[in-house]
Amino acid sequence: MSTHTDIVIEDLSLVRNKSPLVHNITNYVVMNNTANALLAVGASPIMAHAPEEVEEMIQISGVLVINIGTLSAPWVASMEKAMRKAKALGKPIVLDPVGAGASAFRNETLKRLLDASAPSIVRGNASEILATLSSSGKTKGVDATDSSESAVDTGKKLAAYTGGTVVISGPTDFILSHNKTYKVMNGDPMMTKVTGLGCTATALNGAFAAVQSDYARAAFSSMVVMGIAGEMAKKKSPGPGSFQLHFLDALYAMNEDDIKSHIKTE
Amino acid sequence: MSTHTDIVIEDLSLVRNKSPLVHNITNYVVMNNTANALLAVGASPIMAHAPEEVEEMIQISGVLVINIGTLSAPWVASMEKAMRKAKALGKPIVLDPVGAGASAFRNETLKRLLDASAPSIVRGNASEILATLSSSGKTKGVDATDSSESAVDTGKKLAAYTGGTVVISGPTDFILSHNKTYKVMNGDPMMTKVTGLGCTATALNGAFAAVQSDYARAAFSSMVVMGIAGEMAKKKSPGPGSFQLHFLDALYAMNEDDIKSHIKTE
Amino acid sequence: MSTHTDIVIEDLSLVRNKSPLVHNITNYVVMNNTANALLAVGASPIMAHAPEEVEEMIQISGVLVINIGTLSAPWVASMEKAMRKAKALGKPIVLDPVGAGASAFRNETLKRLLDASAPSIVRGNASEILATLSSSGKTKGVDATDSSESAVDTGKKLAAYTGGTVVISGPTDFILSHNKTYKVMNGDPMMTKVTGLGCTATALNGAFAAVQSDYARAAFSSMVVMGIAGEMAKKKSPGPGSFQLHFLDALYAMNEDDIKSHIKTE
Repeated sequence: MSTHTDIVIEDLSLVRNKSPLVHNITNYVVMNNTANALLAVGASPIMAHAPEEVEEMIQISGVLVINIGTLSAPWVASMEKAMRKAKALGKPIVLDPVGAGASAFRNETLKRLLDASAPSIVRGNASEILATLSSSGKTKGVDATDSSESAVDTGKKLAAYTGGTVVISGPTDFILSHNKTYKVMNGDPMMTKVTGLGCTATALNGAFAAVQSDYARAAFSSMVVMGIAGEMAKKKSPGPGSFQLHFLDALYAMNEDDIKSHIKTE
Repeated sequence: MSTHTDIVIEDLSLVRNKSPLVHNITNYVVMNNTANALLAVGASPIMAHAPEEVEEMIQISGVLVINIGTLSAPWVASMEKAMRKAKALGKPIVLDPVGAGASAFRNETLKRLLDASAPSIVRGNASEILATLSSSGKTKGVDATDSSESAVDTGKKLAAYTGGTVVISGPTDFILSHNKTYKVMNGDPMMTKVTGLGCTATALNGAFAAVQSDYARAAFSSMVVMGIAGEMAKKKSPGPGSFQLHFLDALYAMNEDDIKSHIKTE
Repeated sequence: MSTHTDIVIEDLSLVRNKSPLVHNITNYVVMNNTANALLAVGASPIMAHAPEEVEEMIQISGVLVINIGTLSAPWVASMEKAMRKAKALGKPIVLDPVGAGASAFRNETLKRLLDASAPSIVRGNASEILATLSSSGKTKGVDATDSSESAVDTGKKLAAYTGGTVVISGPTDFILSHNKTYKVMNGDPMMTKVTGLGCTATALNGAFAAVQSDYARAAFSSMVVMGIAGEMAKKKSPGPGSFQLHFLDALYAMNEDDIKSHIKTE
């Protein structure tokens, strides 16, 4: 039995036993999926964005998850406020830079959020990670490249900038921190045909970071769980509609044998 | 055949035959589920929150359902406006105090909404009902208790304060008014693993209150239908993903025999 | 093999091969379904409503889809801004006048949006199409009629006013432009028991208009695909919950034989 397998089994048990509160300020499209995925894996979701209450909500939660998918100025102000409070409280922060690079507003927002607090984990696809690093002002110009090699170099730079962990999602997921690199080869192409599974991955990063203070490891374990749930769901699903429900069922039912028999990591 | 069974069968038929318009000002997480549950049970959902139109929307609707799950100041203003109009028109109002007690903003909002109009039905879990009563200024201090005994006492006090019905959801649901107490023992633990089923219960309270002017009875019938749909769905569902769709199918297909064979009430 | 069949097969292939970006400013209730339906049919959804970025988003997209379901003043301002930009760029615009006629605010909003740009396609049910024409100021008084005859006359007037295509959804869908009329008899009554399938139809109108510049034909092809997916889903679905997932699976899996064996058009 590999060490990686032990890690994932242990971390998933932690989530299920501790049922951490996960405070999400996320996008309209995925709120429902995200909440259901957190419940299915054993965590407890809170969705709250009003500036009047975000500080109290992060206070009772184990982690803050920020997702800019359907951002607007009032929501960004709440995200920033919540991140400052989470930083002051020493709680982990997970950031999903959805659509980074697609508009000046997204890039400015990312700069503002990165200035508010360095996230414990940033999770995105290759182009989002590249645009996020660019937003930080540490690089000039965004090359629209999705090659794994380039993405890993960029991800390492972003991890050096934040001092935290960076997750690059793709056919192979890379989990990068200053002293660790994990690769996760689990998952299925049908996951790209369901909206919001990237956002779900980010929320699971958060659930695991709430109970596992080695955030690179937390990110790794949650990406393995995501990928295996995707593979388990695919076996039962002729299309992306049925995939959605089997994915939640798999998160809920996943046991040690499922992890042992599916895990593909380096 | 028990009287309770007759009541539920009759009220479900009323909903299906009259297909009442249910005006919801609810939270982002559950809007889709709520709309689908209302359609599945035979009602017609309207989701509208703009201050410019909420008064016209309640005018054409049979009931107003207010849910503060993802509240913000502009939405609260619309909720208050809609509640005042519903009161003026004599239409039933159902309030779901999601997360009551979790922030000062939620407590202040509840006080403001209770001042705008006494709800015909308030539905929440034990701690939400306790915090709602506390928000009203009628009690000092919130004891974080979830025991059924305490919740029932609190619920009766809240019902006395509003002059309406209070529903406390849990393994046993209590429906409380000044002169009636119903208990519903239907339901399944998997319902707690799907987001927004409490919000769905509140919306169904509304659909039934739109066609059954005895609001305690309306709340009772709808909680029985919720619980039975949950039991029917559980039989077909290995996890919370598949549960969601089977729950909607059960709401849609539930017949007299399903009610007779499942009902567990006092 | 009929010409209609060839058209639908060709247009569906275009969507799948080109995977157009569809920029949606739509309502909270259906965002998730809409995104999933666009992915299932082979397109790529973008959901973005912030005034700071809507112009950049339409610039990278192939079409703009506007849906007023849960409108509010700030969102209407963004819709108007996006429509002006789409017009300037010569990109197709699809408008779904959800709930037209239900409030003065909706009617005023429709007048404002129609003034910003004539939509390439307007899709609604009979009463929405009637209220939309009325909003334009071209008719006085709204007759609450749902008869096909009246709706078609109204739809033709609206098409003459916009210079574009009008889709009237119902048991028979009518697709109307200045020189073409299509009728689609595909679909299933269970589609009315799932929230947001009208909105999904509108989004699919958009996906097809992004790749097929004959917008009447694009609207026609997408309504056939919608209706056939509904029929395929119904065969596997005891209720509206399971229908939702089988509908997405059908959009994803639909092949030439499915189209040939189901198509019912004039």
